[in-house]
Amino acid sequence: MPLVPITDAMYLWGESGTGPSHVVALQIFQTPDDAEPALLDELYDRMTDVTQLKPAFRRRPHRSVWTAGQFEWAQDDHVDLTLHVRRRGLPRPGRIRELLEYVSDFHQTPLPRDRPLWEARLVEGLDDGRFALLTKMHHSLFDGVNMGRHLLGGLSADPSARACTAPWITTDAETPRPTRRSIGPTQLITDTISAAGRITRSAPALASAGADMFGPARETPAPFSAPPSMFNVRVSAARRFAGDAWSKQRLRDVAERTGTTSNDVAVAMCSGALRTYLVEQQALPDRSLVAMVPIAFDPYSRSAGEGNAWAAVLCDLATDEPDPGARLDRIHASTSRSKTMMSRLDQVSATAVSALAMGGAILNVLPGVPDPVRPPFNLIISSVPAVPERLYLDGCELTDNYPVSVVVDGQALNITMVSYAAEIAFGISGCRRSVPHLQRLLVHLDDALSALESVPA
Amino acid sequence: MPLVPITDAMYLWGESGTGPSHVVALQIFQTPDDAEPALLDELYDRMTDVTQLKPAFRRRPHRSVWTAGQFEWAQDDHVDLTLHVRRRGLPRPGRIRELLEYVSDFHQTPLPRDRPLWEARLVEGLDDGRFALLTKMHHSLFDGVNMGRHLLGGLSADPSARACTAPWITTDAETPRPTRRSIGPTQLITDTISAAGRITRSAPALASAGADMFGPARETPAPFSAPPSMFNVRVSAARRFAGDAWSKQRLRDVAERTGTTSNDVAVAMCSGALRTYLVEQQALPDRSLVAMVPIAFDPYSRSAGEGNAWAAVLCDLATDEPDPGARLDRIHASTSRSKTMMSRLDQVSATAVSALAMGGAILNVLPGVPDPVRPPFNLIISSVPAVPERLYLDGCELTDNYPVSVVVDGQALNITMVSYAAEIAFGISGCRRSVPHLQRLLVHLDDALSALESVPA
Repeated sequence: MPLVPITDAMYLWGESGTGPSHVVALQIFQTPDDAEPALLDELYDRMTDVTQLKPAFRRRPHRSVWTAGQFEWAQDDHVDLTLHVRRRGLPRPGRIRELLEYVSDFHQTPLPRDRPLWEARLVEGLDDGRFALLTKMHHSLFDGVNMGRHLLGGLSADPSARACTAPWITTDAETPRPTRRSIGPTQLITDTISAAGRITRSAPALASAGADMFGPARETPAPFSAPPSMFNVRVSAARRFAGDAWSKQRLRDVAERTGTTSNDVAVAMCSGALRTYLVEQQALPDRSLVAMVPIAFDPYSRSAGEGNAWAAVLCDLATDEPDPGARLDRIHASTSRSKTMMSRLDQVSATAVSALAMGGAILNVLPGVPDPVRPPFNLIISSVPAVPERLYLDGCELTDNYPVSVVVDGQALNITMVSYAAEIAFGISGCRRSVPHLQRLLVHLDDALSALESVPA
Repeated sequence: MPLVPITDAMYLWGESGTGPSHVVALQIFQTPDDAEPALLDELYDRMTDVTQLKPAFRRRPHRSVWTAGQFEWAQDDHVDLTLHVRRRGLPRPGRIRELLEYVSDFHQTPLPRDRPLWEARLVEGLDDGRFALLTKMHHSLFDGVNMGRHLLGGLSADPSARACTAPWITTDAETPRPTRRSIGPTQLITDTISAAGRITRSAPALASAGADMFGPARETPAPFSAPPSMFNVRVSAARRFAGDAWSKQRLRDVAERTGTTSNDVAVAMCSGALRTYLVEQQALPDRSLVAMVPIAFDPYSRSAGEGNAWAAVLCDLATDEPDPGARLDRIHASTSRSKTMMSRLDQVSATAVSALAMGGAILNVLPGVPDPVRPPFNLIISSVPAVPERLYLDGCELTDNYPVSVVVDGQALNITMVSYAAEIAFGISGCRRSVPHLQRLLVHLDDALSALESVPA
């Protein structure tokens, strides 16, 4: 059995009871008007057809005296798919609120270590007739790029396509499925696989890039330093998740008028929302919050390949600045400086470094990272590769697509942005105890965008 | 903060990822025909009123260098009841099967250690309009007697009584609730509390009784010894639960005709079902299975006090005997011998010893217990105190009442019998991987009872 590489194993070692190192993908689908009543039953049957299970979803960590305590990957030949993939209902009235409460609970629960490190839930009972697919994947098993590949690779941009697949199901020629038409991989998958391949090849460059990324905040004088904040505390096991989406055109309009980028506007929305929230909580630090944020983030490109590569660097959020326009300017200046710093990294390496940072658990295990009360940054505002076009699962439109990200000691809040078709979605994951009323950030995000729209040119 | 006594702390130390030391109580309620649509909302609101939370449900384990690594109980003054008690729906078609699948998943998930060690789920969506309350309680926090006290103490035998309470809610005078009528404790609670008090006082007798209980299988020649079996293996994290109930009158009739006891008949049902199951699995050992079973079990007494005390001892299940009548005879002989052995224990001590054994986790931590392949017994067939009369939660009849018991390494199957009103219910908990098609045992139990009814006098 192969040993688990240290870059993956750190997510196993670093995991604590209150900070499991997994990500949950929340995907909501709209059934078409002419859907058969048994549609979900049929989808579930195919989701639990173990003969079509991808090999990556059969791996489980194994450790014994024979491996000298190191983790190795064991291939599980008896995966019980009806155990990994379960159906769930929602309590009445079946609003998004009830769904998100369930998402929070599912996010909180660690993956059992005695079987492959992923699980999924097919959730019905939303009052508008939609259903949700929640997929929980451990960070030791998949990096962000691979997660995206699995999560979207089985869907189709064609509403009339059938035999679409769940993230863990393959239609590869090696495991043929003669009774159903096999669809080819989309351009999206091909591009992502190619990017993933190049990451492997650029490993040495990555190592030094990683040192540069984390270096400034630790060893050399940083251009700014993060204040202690209510988000940088020891977390409880409980989670809360909230999410909403806005039209990308609105962000683009603000960016064009102010001479900034859509990404700057998205970060400024977060900054404004965080400032309002912290004022409400009477917990606004005198100095500005520092975020690890995405740059070189171009969600509006129609190309699904490298154009969507993204990177994350430290960014001054300007939360000490009351004026929305001045905040946006400072954020723009900060990300511009960071872009210069990142320019010597090729895009793929930058993506990989950022994916590493996005894992969050790295904070638990990286030597030399200061105590939570003196954080290297206050929160991660991350991003996942953009999805340019509407996708469908056997004719069911993917209406919402959120990653629910890792929350760990010292990082009680995480905001992840996803660009999907004409919208940009913000998913907010947090510790339920440390970040009370987390869902209010959604209202504050909306207010922040309105305020930015009122900023003069 | 008080240190956790070793008898409770062993459930914390002994707990492994695949064998959490908690019990789940499954209670199903029938709403009355004239129930308000908002009944569940109202019940849930009262279930999450933190001002009425019992102190025992505020305790969480705490361990640090300051306690020299020992567990102590910390009182949690900020219990988030809407986190501990969650609402759930069931997927269609909402049969008992969907409920039991959810119960299995809930049973599998360990309790987070950073808050009080209990959780509950109010589950709706059963196709017959009933709802379920699942209460998960850690064995370090409550022994079997106390669990029963909490689980049933808030219900009423009077269908017209209102302001009934969930297991964790108190209506004590110390925490008055002026807006609602407070009901007094039932006779059941009073009796159980008194029994619990006497357990504490008889602690020294208990210690030696415990040594006697576990002694014979370990150190001295036993009258019979347990063969290796498919139930005595390392377990996975996944669980399955199945349950059904039979009329007590049917068991009583068999007992009267054969000169045995109703308890012997119940154990013989288990024995017959296990034999059929093991034959199906081509895994029937040549020698008979040995169970730890309840004796002095008189579920048909109308007295709710000591008459319901029960005890468990090793019992020859006679699974090597093909004839149902001969099996019943051997079981009767075995339990009669055991009764003699137990007679020098007073009832309360015997109950406590059995409650300890029922925890199951003790097998993980007791020094000198042999390796799972050479088990001291093959399974625990346990029992909880009988409930003689129908109980109601604000007019909603408790129709089903099952404990879902502990499954640990070496003990992959557990059968728990509950006498409630005119029926005796069998709850079967097992490791999903080691005990495939566990639910078939229900059919085999039914067949076994029919076979016993055909045994000549």
